[in-house]
Parts: sequence; structure tokens; C-alpha cells
Amino acid sequence: MDLKDLFVKISEFEGKVVELNGWVRNHRPQKEFGFIDFSDGTCFKHLQIVYDNTLSNFETISKVLVGSALNIKGIIKKSEGASQDYELKAQEITILGLCPEDYPIQPKRHTREFLRSLAYLRPRTNLFQAVFRIRSVAALAIHEYFGTHNFVYVHTPLITTADCEGSDQMFKITTLNLDKVPMKDNHADMSKDLFGKLAYVTGTGQLHGEAFAMAFKKIYTFGPTFRTENSNTKTHANEFWMIEPEMAFCDLNGLMDTEEEMLKFIVKYVLDNCPAEIEFCDKFVENGLKEKLEKLVSSNFTRITHHDVIDILKKANVKWEYEPTYESDIQKEHEKYITEYFNGPVFITNWPKDIKAWYMKTNPDNKTVAAVDLEVPGAGELMGGSQREEDYEKLLKRCQEMNVDISKVDWFCNLRKYGTCVHSGFGMGFERLLIYLTGVENIRDVIPFPRTPGNCDY
Amino acid sequence: MDLKDLFVKISEFEGKVVELNGWVRNHRPQKEFGFIDFSDGTCFKHLQIVYDNTLSNFETISKVLVGSALNIKGIIKKSEGASQDYELKAQEITILGLCPEDYPIQPKRHTREFLRSLAYLRPRTNLFQAVFRIRSVAALAIHEYFGTHNFVYVHTPLITTADCEGSDQMFKITTLNLDKVPMKDNHADMSKDLFGKLAYVTGTGQLHGEAFAMAFKKIYTFGPTFRTENSNTKTHANEFWMIEPEMAFCDLNGLMDTEEEMLKFIVKYVLDNCPAEIEFCDKFVENGLKEKLEKLVSSNFTRITHHDVIDILKKANVKWEYEPTYESDIQKEHEKYITEYFNGPVFITNWPKDIKAWYMKTNPDNKTVAAVDLEVPGAGELMGGSQREEDYEKLLKRCQEMNVDISKVDWFCNLRKYGTCVHSGFGMGFERLLIYLTGVENIRDVIPFPRTPGNCDY
Repeated sequence: MDLKDLFVKISEFEGKVVELNGWVRNHRPQKEFGFIDFSDGTCFKHLQIVYDNTLSNFETISKVLVGSALNIKGIIKKSEGASQDYELKAQEITILGLCPEDYPIQPKRHTREFLRSLAYLRPRTNLFQAVFRIRSVAALAIHEYFGTHNFVYVHTPLITTADCEGSDQMFKITTLNLDKVPMKDNHADMSKDLFGKLAYVTGTGQLHGEAFAMAFKKIYTFGPTFRTENSNTKTHANEFWMIEPEMAFCDLNGLMDTEEEMLKFIVKYVLDNCPAEIEFCDKFVENGLKEKLEKLVSSNFTRITHHDVIDILKKANVKWEYEPTYESDIQKEHEKYITEYFNGPVFITNWPKDIKAWYMKTNPDNKTVAAVDLEVPGAGELMGGSQREEDYEKLLKRCQEMNVDISKVDWFCNLRKYGTCVHSGFGMGFERLLIYLTGVENIRDVIPFPRTPGNCDY
Repeated sequence: MDLKDLFVKISEFEGKVVELNGWVRNHRPQKEFGFIDFSDGTCFKHLQIVYDNTLSNFETISKVLVGSALNIKGIIKKSEGASQDYELKAQEITILGLCPEDYPIQPKRHTREFLRSLAYLRPRTNLFQAVFRIRSVAALAIHEYFGTHNFVYVHTPLITTADCEGSDQMFKITTLNLDKVPMKDNHADMSKDLFGKLAYVTGTGQLHGEAFAMAFKKIYTFGPTFRTENSNTKTHANEFWMIEPEMAFCDLNGLMDTEEEMLKFIVKYVLDNCPAEIEFCDKFVENGLKEKLEKLVSSNFTRITHHDVIDILKKANVKWEYEPTYESDIQKEHEKYITEYFNGPVFITNWPKDIKAWYMKTNPDNKTVAAVDLEVPGAGELMGGSQREEDYEKLLKRCQEMNVDISKVDWFCNLRKYGTCVHSGFGMGFERLLIYLTGVENIRDVIPFPRTPGNCDY
């Protein structure tokens, strides 16, 4: 049986025989008996196994090293020790797979840098048991939220020929032999490639998502995304997962309602379903994590325009590294100040149009667009979204102004010709959410096998 | 409100005013009144809107064309017509976005080939409303099944440098300028690429999944997968989604138990949650679809060895195009015969080792491996899996025999050194499942924006 199912109602198993498979996480053999910290990975908690020299293979078992796989039969008993309520008194222990002395994962603190070099073994440590179960539970929370709110889950394509985001940020994907690229007129002859033209792996599913929102009203994507950024920071990876909901008949206010409700739902879901993992992260990763998350669930999110934010920043008695201006983006130092100023999450709306994307809805002032960034204390910018320009003529004009090649996005613009409506969407980087949920600071530690410049092992 | 929420308890809304946003799917204007088939995409069913010349904008509304977006306020009433129970008597209709006469999606039968050329509009048709909602619901069913069975959802990487599957089947991914690939010793100088070496997008998450199964006991992946196959058939696409569960402490029988339970769960979930969509597909796509699916849920899956299957095929009074042999794979004609022979799904186990992958568990006969394919009537091979070779020395030997470059998979082999155990996993192509669930025959019609050789539009 799974340890998780055992722990759910362990008192009912008192005095009963159970059979478990799992791994030795720690082992304290004594002369005539021994204790094993036993885990099968289905829950964060370990079970203490007690065995003694009545076992026929007592000598062998007492030499078993950390990391070994065992099958154990025994009786659940109230524990005499103080640290756990129940333990298992072993009647039979069978060795499934031994582990040698040079096993790199020992029951002691390892640095995260060291564990990163062992990405295939690190999920066996407490930290990564917590992080990757929270990753899994948060992903289910996202599907649960959207599934129960009438959203259709859409698998937008990763391979794309639309380079409207700027193709220098996208990986090229090819079947050509790179040692001998076929040439034509001094250019690679992409007609020889599988798709007959140059193709990329995408950085967004938004454009395709909008087409589906105009048929299903509410949709979301949840899948991997790629960026070629040659940047070695704690928050950049070349492969990461994104959630991109898109809603027809929804303006910027409706969008913020959904962002706020969704985030609270996910955080509450993780608090409810990963109490042991959150407790561990609170204790060993970020002190105050649990309180931070609980506070978010019950907080009111402020809504304020970019203009008014700049006003506040200008009036602040702070010497800024970057002077805030009405025309430009805000910096990390500003984000921090504003979330502290309002003591909670802040939606910043109506951004200067020149620093935002071409598909966003231009406001009546013709200076700003109906965009919104959500700033969360301790997380920075967690989501970015906008109302989309739903007017065909205005969208074409924006394409021209922003040098977007209309021939590559004509189908997308056509959505405005056939029954257009006010619609909005946002994107949330899943890893950014996980950094917030776990307190882990480096994106490399919330991705199973991270890909960053120069690093593509395993 | 969403049409879906209205239909759930429409009788409670009788006599009440509701407000809806959606699109005109059909319109029958008369002289003094009119009928609109109205859909907002949140459910398969349309609502009939009745309006008359008491509307202030009656003339305008009666000229509204199919595809237009409307906001409608009105009262829910028992319908006098026979075709629906309730309808909405409009009090106010506001035009949100008109649709021109040349709108290609008209309320008539379009060929699927035609609709494929309009991938961004086809989700507005009945067929694709059904198909893509079933796709979404089936995806949720998968997460629901694994989430409630203690599996951890793992996002295995798509970018990989491990080419153990045969790199000729994988797309290369690069940031190099293909017009001027930097060369060194007559080869592309991949040290200049973002990862410092040649990288691919992967065709499987299994290897990485096994590493996580050895920490979490039960895991699954569910994500996009890529193949470069230059094949223009109804069942091949270059980008598709796969589900790959992996279970520690699980042998081939346990694997088959999970495959069977999971498949029945998904099919039942779709039958329960998409009754209107299944009914539509049953009527217009595959006659008998619903009965086929219901039969699967209650059927017993046969378990039989490849050897015994060949016996049956050899004894059959059939003139085969491909003669069945004990050493080779079985063909479509054989699959069909066997599922008809047993009148239900069939697990075929213990395949000749030379035609299967290097990581599969060699059976004691040293001729076969503990692999299993699931053959389903009307779907062919729906899943493929195996017990994995858990013995370190035997696995290395298989690598050598099969010419697998051990240096590329050393970490994977090492999993057998550190607490190894019997473990098993399988893969299911999500689109193959959808073809089975919807009756749609062509993989291009179950993928939102399909990518096939020469086709990468949108």
C-alpha cells in the first residue's frame, strides 16, 4: 500500500499487518535492534520502522545503507518515542535493491548547487520532495480552478512559423543537417526543411488561444514555453511552463477578478493539500512562508493605474536608483515599494502604450493601453495581461505603427472581422508562482531538469 | 452568465431575466419576429432566442448575420416548439460585433478538408465544439485519475541532449544563424550554440520520468512530444501530446491493472461529462460510438502473450497479407483479428526482444522482454509499455548489444545502482485516444493547430 493512504487513517491500522515498499532515508542500527526512516515518496512524511534480532536476516538488514529499496511487512503500533505517533514493527524485511556507500544523497544538508549537479537524484531529498510535490499539486489546482469555471483547456501548438514576438527570442527548429545546410542565394534553403519553411518553438500560446476563446468563450493553455535569452540569473530559464487564459466578453476588470480569484484558489489549494511540505519550506527555506501565503488568500488586491503609481513613487521620500517616469516601465525597487505601500498585492493598470505589446487595447486617451501587471509582495510581477484590441481597423493600425508583419498574423487580425467582442487574457509563469509558493529563490530549483545557457544535461 | 450554468438548472430560471453574451449560430428572421440559435461556447447546446418587433432595434437585429456577437437580455420561458424545452424571449439585444456575409463558417455541412484550411475558425462549428471539448475533458480526466491515485505530475524537459532514441527522429533546436552556421573541422561548431552543444526537442519523457518514479513511487508526464517523421498519413503528426506514467515497485501485471483502470476511468468520465458531444459524434461521425465506449467500460481486458497470439493467427483461416511469425511485430490486420477474436481489448505481452527497446526487462527465457501493447477494438494499439530492466549489469549489457551510447544515458543507468527496484511504465498518445473517443479518423482533426510535413500554418 502507499504510505500516503496509510497515514490518512493510521489509527485504524493499529495492530494490523501492512506491507510497504520504499526506500531507506536514514538508518540507526543498534546491537539487537534498529530504526529505519522509511519513505515511499507518496507523501512527505516518513514512517519509522523498528526491527530487532528476531528477524531471520537481522545481520543483513542492520548493514543496509541509506538509499536502499526494501519490502517490509509488519504491524502498526503506537510509538513509545516522542517524535511520532505510530511506527511499524517489522516482521519481515526483504531487500529489493541495495545502495552503495558512495551514494551521494546522504541524510545531511547538501548545498543546492551540489544537488543541481545531481538533478536525477535530488528528488529523493526532503527539499525536492517538497518542491516537486508542490509543483504537481499547484498544477492540479490550476486545472481544477479552470475546469470548474467552464474554461476549455487548449493545447496550442509549440511549433510555429509566426515570428511576431521577435524571432531572435525564439529557438529555430529544423531537420536539416547543420553540418551541410542547403543554400540558395546565400541563404539557408528552408524549402528543404520538413515544414518547407523556417519554423520556431514558441514563446506564447496567446494568439492561438484567442482564436479558441472566440469559439469557447473561456479557454486556458498550460504548457511549456521557450526563450533563447542568454541570461544567467536566478529567474531565467530557457524552458519553462506558462498558463495563458483568454476570455471573450471580458474587460480589464473582469480579467483582474479572474486573476485574483485564481491565485487565491491555487494558494489555498496548496496550503490545504501540502501542509507538511509548506511547513518544511517555512522552517528551512523561507521563514514566514506559511503566514505570507495565508495572508495572500485573505487579502484585498489593490487596483491602481500606472499614472497614480508613478505619482506615489515621485512623492516617496526615497532616493531611487531609477527615477520613476510616466512614460516608462517600473523597476524592481518600485514594485517592492508599491506592494509595501499597499501592504498586499497590487494590480497596476493602464500602461504607456509604447512600452507594451501591439495587440493590447488602446485606451480613449490614446496614450495608454488596457494592460495590467499583478505585483505580489515577495514575488514581484506574477502575472501580466491585457484587454485585447478588438477593433479590426485599430489593430491593423497598431500593427503598422509597431512594425508587425501583418501577413504573418492576418488570421489573428481576422478574428476581429467575424463577430468580434471585448476580450482579455493574461499569462502567468508557472515557475514564478512556484518560487513564490515554496520560497525557493532560484528557478533552477523548481524545474525538474532545468535548461539554462550552457546547461542542458540529462 | 454562462449558457452552461443556465442549462444546468434552467427550470429554476423560468420567468426570470437573464443576460447572455454569445454568437449567432443560425438566424431565421420573419416579418414581425425572429429566431436565433445562440451559443456562447461554454456548452454544446444552443439556446433559442425569440425576438419580435417590440424591440426598439428590431429592424437592425433582423438583419444580423450568422457569426455575429450579441449581448442579450430577456426572460426564460417554456418553449412552444417541440425541439427545445426552454427558450429566451428577448427584451433587449445589443450588437457587439457584426459578421459579414462572406464569413466562411455557415450553418451547413463543410468538409473537414475545407475546415482544416480554417483552423482558426473551425472551433466554432458543431463538430469541433464537440471534438475540442472532449479533448479538454479527457485531459482533465487524466489529471483527475492520476491525482487521486497518488501520482505526482512531472514536467520532464522537452529540450534534451540525450539522443538515445535515434537522433534522426528528433528535431534539432538551435539559436545559430542557419544562413551562416559557424564551422569547425567541417562540422557545425555547436559550442557556439546556446547550450554549447547540439540539442533536440524530445520524443519521450520516459527516461526523466523514471528518475522521478524512483523518488515519488508513482509519477506521470502529460505534455507535447515531437517526431520528425516525414509521413503523411491519417495517424501521424509532428507535434502531439503524450501521457507517460512510471511506477516503482510495479511489475507488468500491475502495469496492466493501471492501464485498464485508467482507460475505463477516462472513457467513463467523458461519457458522464460530455453526453451531448458524444451523442453528436455518434450521430454524425461514427455510428455506434456511444455503445462502443460503454462496452469498453464494462469489458474484461484479455491478457495473452505474443507467442500465443501468433499461434491463434497461424491457426486462423485467413489469407494474411503479412504472414505472422514468432519473431516479428504484428500488423494492423492481425490487431484487428485478435480484438475481434476476443471481442474486446487485448493486452499482448512478452514480445521478441529484438524488436523492442533496449531498456525493457529481459524475461528469463532470454528471448522475450516484459513489454505489453494494448490493442483496443476500433483504435488499434492505444498504449505501449514495459517493465524496465532494473538490473544494472544486465542493462549495461543490453546497451552494448543495441549500440546505445552509454555515456549519454549513464545517469539513467545509475538509477539501478542506488536502491533499484522492479518498475514499469507506459506511454499513451493522447491524439490516438481522442480519435477513439470521438470517432474522428484523422489526427489533423483532433489537434487544435496540427503540424504535419509541409504544414505549419497559423
